Amino acid sequence: MIKKFLMTPGPTQVPPQVLSAMARPIIHHRTGEYSELFARVNENLKYVYQTENDVLSFASSGTGAMESAVINLCSPGDRVLVAACGKFGERWRDLAAAYGLDAEYHEYEYGQPVDPDDIARSLEADPHIKVVFVTHSETSTGVVNDMQAIGAAVEDHDAVLVTDSISGMGSAEIRTDAWQVDVVVAGSQKALMIPPGLAFVSVSDKAWALAEKARLPRFYFDWLKARKGLQQAQPTTAFTPAVSLMVGLDAALGLIREEGLENLFRRHIVMGRACRAAIKGMGLELFSPDDDSSSSVTAVRLPEGIEDGRLRSLTRDRFGVQFAGGQGPVKGKIIRIGHCGYYNYTDIIVAIAALELALKELGHPVELGSGIKAAELIFGEETV
Amino acid sequence: MIKKFLMTPGPTQVPPQVLSAMARPIIHHRTGEYSELFARVNENLKYVYQTENDVLSFASSGTGAMESAVINLCSPGDRVLVAACGKFGERWRDLAAAYGLDAEYHEYEYGQPVDPDDIARSLEADPHIKVVFVTHSETSTGVVNDMQAIGAAVEDHDAVLVTDSISGMGSAEIRTDAWQVDVVVAGSQKALMIPPGLAFVSVSDKAWALAEKARLPRFYFDWLKARKGLQQAQPTTAFTPAVSLMVGLDAALGLIREEGLENLFRRHIVMGRACRAAIKGMGLELFSPDDDSSSSVTAVRLPEGIEDGRLRSLTRDRFGVQFAGGQGPVKGKIIRIGHCGYYNYTDIIVAIAALELALKELGHPVELGSGIKAAELIFGEETV
Repeated sequence: MIKKFLMTPGPTQVPPQVLSAMARPIIHHRTGEYSELFARVNENLKYVYQTENDVLSFASSGTGAMESAVINLCSPGDRVLVAACGKFGERWRDLAAAYGLDAEYHEYEYGQPVDPDDIARSLEADPHIKVVFVTHSETSTGVVNDMQAIGAAVEDHDAVLVTDSISGMGSAEIRTDAWQVDVVVAGSQKALMIPPGLAFVSVSDKAWALAEKARLPRFYFDWLKARKGLQQAQPTTAFTPAVSLMVGLDAALGLIREEGLENLFRRHIVMGRACRAAIKGMGLELFSPDDDSSSSVTAVRLPEGIEDGRLRSLTRDRFGVQFAGGQGPVKGKIIRIGHCGYYNYTDIIVAIAALELALKELGHPVELGSGIKAAELIFGEETV
Repeated sequence: MIKKFLMTPGPTQVPPQVLSAMARPIIHHRTGEYSELFARVNENLKYVYQTENDVLSFASSGTGAMESAVINLCSPGDRVLVAACGKFGERWRDLAAAYGLDAEYHEYEYGQPVDPDDIARSLEADPHIKVVFVTHSETSTGVVNDMQAIGAAVEDHDAVLVTDSISGMGSAEIRTDAWQVDVVVAGSQKALMIPPGLAFVSVSDKAWALAEKARLPRFYFDWLKARKGLQQAQPTTAFTPAVSLMVGLDAALGLIREEGLENLFRRHIVMGRACRAAIKGMGLELFSPDDDSSSSVTAVRLPEGIEDGRLRSLTRDRFGVQFAGGQGPVKGKIIRIGHCGYYNYTDIIVAIAALELALKELGHPVELGSGIKAAELIFGEETV
């Protein structure tokens, strides 16, 4: 009997309450019943986002909502700034290129954060920059960028600040309004605890002002169409929503409301802390930052002589624990332990045990229990 | 106790086997397990599509896949032809306008089909037309256009033929290859029997040749990215797929395989026939065509003095049966009975009973049982 522990940064584990909600007979989306659910989901999304801005929903992966930010804010040839420190930062660059934008590109090494001062300097030097695109939680490395500092760097300029918080929303705190982040992209399949297929964007007044003038072509991902639906007496979507996923999201947001944001973020911080302690305790080296900012994903350097594919097949097939591998230049060099969403200490303990057992099996000198002990020391102080 | 019968042309009823498949713990999409499922889904989609062409999947509503056809086939200013006979045909017009295409627009009255000869004449007269956009099953009226004749009208020209079969695929037959339909758009929430959130496009060689030269900007809906994923040894998607919906689709396509295409289409034809007989039997007037082409949606003219909202609230709240209203110019003038997907004679009987009961309740002179009797006469000959 294998019990499966999905420890990847998306998709993540889905709570049984959510799975069973999604298994209910489907309802129609142009009904009072659905509008009521949609209104509640919108309110609860604002709660998690910590915003009074509109939060728009799309039936798509997170990339679709990222693209929506590009096409709703920009006109052909617009000057923008992209700051990337990993694979998902590069996606902003690729999106900007696909739409013929004139992008100033800041690139940071995988594993390093974006420097907010670089953004401040660029905006000082070039007042034509209309939009700044930056990743909040860089899923490929575990780095979480300092959106408070980046928000402060942008706020006095005309530029609109857009961030991808797909693996951050609900695990690495982002205070959308307080930190003046104009557009925040999120996805369903990370800390929001439902399967992939929904994506979200919050839009500030500053961003709406730009969106109303933007001239890149768009249709399905048109924010104005989405806002029109939201503003109706019975709120709705422009196009058929992914009804069952919205029903699941409603259940998941209910769980988040019950836990409360403070507990939610604290749980993720403690899990990250325990995970890092365990990795160091078993003699491995961290790739993700060794501080509390890194609460969604813990990235671990593969020890010399251990082959990525063999290690992860072994943890998955024999021990039931699925980790993620590296991407881009760190492919084959790191593994990633996702713990954003429906995770608590039990998952971390199991994940670390599987890693210890698999490394031992592959001949790496690891003292069984050494990582677990370090994690337990953290969880003994604060069980989450 | 209310038992709910969703009789709308999308979302449609989801089989319990599919609901329970989607309630299984989520799996990761970059695994052999998912690739195996995805490969099987792709094969089974080709079976339903009756094609050897690639069928691409997107996490989006059907409109997203319609947009994908526009942006993957066209370059700015391209000459195209749009033939519309209802709300979803108009969507092609709106998409063409959003992307600055130069569209020749054929408009037919709601309830009338597109005339294939008009398309032939336009293509003869204007060899610059690159793409023809037309609806297969017009969900807003119940009209199903003759794609065989339209395919024949286009085949000798350079133009690529694109059709929206979102409410047709799996209920109103479309022989993609035999009828030379280059691009067929489908959605998950109609006869494919799963919740909304997935959309599909098949792409012929002729369409690929055009797609490779098309210059409209695109990213999330890029066909070339999707094909690249499909062609890998372990087939995958460019972006995170809607995993739980794909798991549901796998189960639903299994049911379709079991039934077989011939039975599948026959069942829909007989349901349409029974539904029309019932409507006429109870003294109402059909809005959708009174022939076997109309197998997805039966549209009924509201009798004098019967208010749409009151009628449909009554059938829904008191009798548990949800119908759809009219759209565009026929809003408030018709109701639509959806029977594409997981429906059989029992649903038609219940739907007709609810309609009889509600009309009686609202003071319309209807003989109870008159519609049911007419439907039973059909189902007595052939129970589906």
